[in-house]
Amino acid sequence: MPNPSLLILPGDGIGPEVMAEVRKIIDWMGDNRGLVFDVTEDLVGGCAYDKHGTPLTDATMEQAQKVDAVLLGAVGGPKYDDLDFSVKPERGLLRLRKEMDLFANLRPAQCFDALADFSSLKRDVVAGLDIVIVRELTSGIYFGEPRGIIEEGNERVGINTQRYTESEIERVCRSAFELAMKRSKKLCSMEKANVMESGVLWRQVATEVGRDYPEVELSHMYADNGAMQLVRKPKQFDVIVTDNLFGDLLSDAAAMLTGSLGMLPSASLGAPMENGRPKALYEPVHGSAPDIAGQGKANPIACILSFAMALRYSFDRGDDALAVEGAVEAVLAQGLRTADLLGEDGTDAVTTSEMGDAIVAAL
Amino acid sequence: MPNPSLLILPGDGIGPEVMAEVRKIIDWMGDNRGLVFDVTEDLVGGCAYDKHGTPLTDATMEQAQKVDAVLLGAVGGPKYDDLDFSVKPERGLLRLRKEMDLFANLRPAQCFDALADFSSLKRDVVAGLDIVIVRELTSGIYFGEPRGIIEEGNERVGINTQRYTESEIERVCRSAFELAMKRSKKLCSMEKANVMESGVLWRQVATEVGRDYPEVELSHMYADNGAMQLVRKPKQFDVIVTDNLFGDLLSDAAAMLTGSLGMLPSASLGAPMENGRPKALYEPVHGSAPDIAGQGKANPIACILSFAMALRYSFDRGDDALAVEGAVEAVLAQGLRTADLLGEDGTDAVTTSEMGDAIVAAL
Ligand SMILES: CC(C)[C@H](C(=O)O)[C@@H](O)C(=O)O
Ligand SMILES: CC(C)[C@H](C(=O)O)[C@@H](O)C(=O)O
Repeated sequence: MPNPSLLILPGDGIGPEVMAEVRKIIDWMGDNRGLVFDVTEDLVGGCAYDKHGTPLTDATMEQAQKVDAVLLGAVGGPKYDDLDFSVKPERGLLRLRKEMDLFANLRPAQCFDALADFSSLKRDVVAGLDIVIVRELTSGIYFGEPRGIIEEGNERVGINTQRYTESEIERVCRSAFELAMKRSKKLCSMEKANVMESGVLWRQVATEVGRDYPEVELSHMYADNGAMQLVRKPKQFDVIVTDNLFGDLLSDAAAMLTGSLGMLPSASLGAPMENGRPKALYEPVHGSAPDIAGQGKANPIACILSFAMALRYSFDRGDDALAVEGAVEAVLAQGLRTADLLGEDGTDAVTTSEMGDAIVAAL
Repeated sequence: MPNPSLLILPGDGIGPEVMAEVRKIIDWMGDNRGLVFDVTEDLVGGCAYDKHGTPLTDATMEQAQKVDAVLLGAVGGPKYDDLDFSVKPERGLLRLRKEMDLFANLRPAQCFDALADFSSLKRDVVAGLDIVIVRELTSGIYFGEPRGIIEEGNERVGINTQRYTESEIERVCRSAFELAMKRSKKLCSMEKANVMESGVLWRQVATEVGRDYPEVELSHMYADNGAMQLVRKPKQFDVIVTDNLFGDLLSDAAAMLTGSLGMLPSASLGAPMENGRPKALYEPVHGSAPDIAGQGKANPIACILSFAMALRYSFDRGDDALAVEGAVEAVLAQGLRTADLLGEDGTDAVTTSEMGDAIVAAL
């Protein structure tokens, strides 16, 4: 059997720094667990635009389609704010999601015990929180046509289209139900069926898919109420499934609840490839944080835990995933903190690479 | 001069109960401040559907166009969940907003000192919070065409369209800048310009309008980051302006931060009428809460404070508005609480009408 293959796309801002720490874990897996990866590395986002005039070259796209999993750092930054829409750093990421057809984005919002006090929410509201938002990632208003800015009667008009087919809704709901079956068998679907017809269809299809999972308790909630309830009492949820745009806002809000934004990984999964592995891209939930880039302040844990998700979902190495997650918990229990986990103060912070080294040591 | 006119639409769920308390304040104004209103009352939402087969009759719509201000309670309830989309309770409210052209929805998220501990957020994160979200209310994906559920190649497809003209963005941004001028001269505009062209146009127009308000410090934020920042550090904001759908989620999240959902009013304002008053509808931020309807548990304060906003924005009675707001603060300081302000427990709660009476007494 050939080695499993990884494409690493560190991207912009703190992306390269945090990915360098993931490299240490990858090497450790090769040295100690016989899990040797064929790794290629390439550009995505602003840095790809700087070099090639596009946030993702066709060659990189082709490579992403071939490998067993893609690891991405982060894209974007103020430097690229005035770029034309079509070549913005984000377009590189969106192209990957779309062309790899990564329809199910799993975003755990987990509150690490050692960090519960760091949340802006009261400890008892978030302690022990462990929910997953399954966000549709390849359709909806992110990709619908027609779109653009047109001239009409002497003024500009901005247009985007939310468009969901039944099968698009069905497959992501199915992923969410499967996940719910492995967890506490509770799924909440969120949309605005009271206002949007695409939400009406979403609710219908979610209900229909639910018939195949009679054990799962399915509920529906309007997304605005969802935003409220996540703030009010997040532990009422277990798995949430929602569309691309609502998922964008709701998962960010949920991540922030935990106080552990620098800790949260995500997996974006598509259909199985010939070798049985799903098409997959793993990335931290946090962004490129250009304000702290290059200063050794970034927290590499979200990116390292994203790699742990890759071990679990792409490489069937649940044990190794647990080992990495355990090592992260161990260093946190030792009191190690990067600057983001120390509030305004931030003295005693370890650097990005000290944190990475400590996690390797704990392994 | 004829008496100023009010159309009262109590609506569904707890709407009628809370509106009954507003009536007491209205009467008090007539008896004590020489402010006598011509009041008509009518149906909207599910109750209108029950009686007329439509959530808003043409006659009610006509009356709403004629009066100086509309006061609305709340619409909707599970009883109506299976109604056809076109006659859902919410369509009544949406028709009012659209046909009255109420483009600027002002949603204050204010944390009442007496209630700061009731928030799920830490006291110091929310104490003293006083922000206003200005939400565009007559366009965007709520109203854009094409929309609907169509059949395509053997499956259903749900479609909605986000469509913003330059002038629609301009007028709501102008309202937000005007408000910012009266407050701390800080305005944050939220969209997804990194993903949606309608957001690109939004950002451009907000920037252009900002040239007329050089004193206002304008910033831009992606709406997902906005959802995060509202949870992380809400006091960094003062006035926020955003589109209809983002405004729906973000204002609900912001309202929940304060722990005072039963306390928060809103004003929806349009262009000035012939008499100089703006077209206006006032309603609480909370919904129809069917689970507690008819039990005397509802908190009437949000609806009463909505009437205070009417006094201020429609009737130029800032002093009387302050008097009502002061009376609300006084009864809270006395320790009066409706059930929603007492957590799980809820003993010692006063009823809806006891709260209303106490506020009248405090006046
Ligand atoms: C970077 C951006 C395009 C992206 C999105 O909007 O999906 C990000 O916010 C995310 O949630 O992954
Ligand atoms: C009731 C519903 C149509 C409405 C909306 O989505 O605008 C409500 O959520 C609101 O925010 O006023």
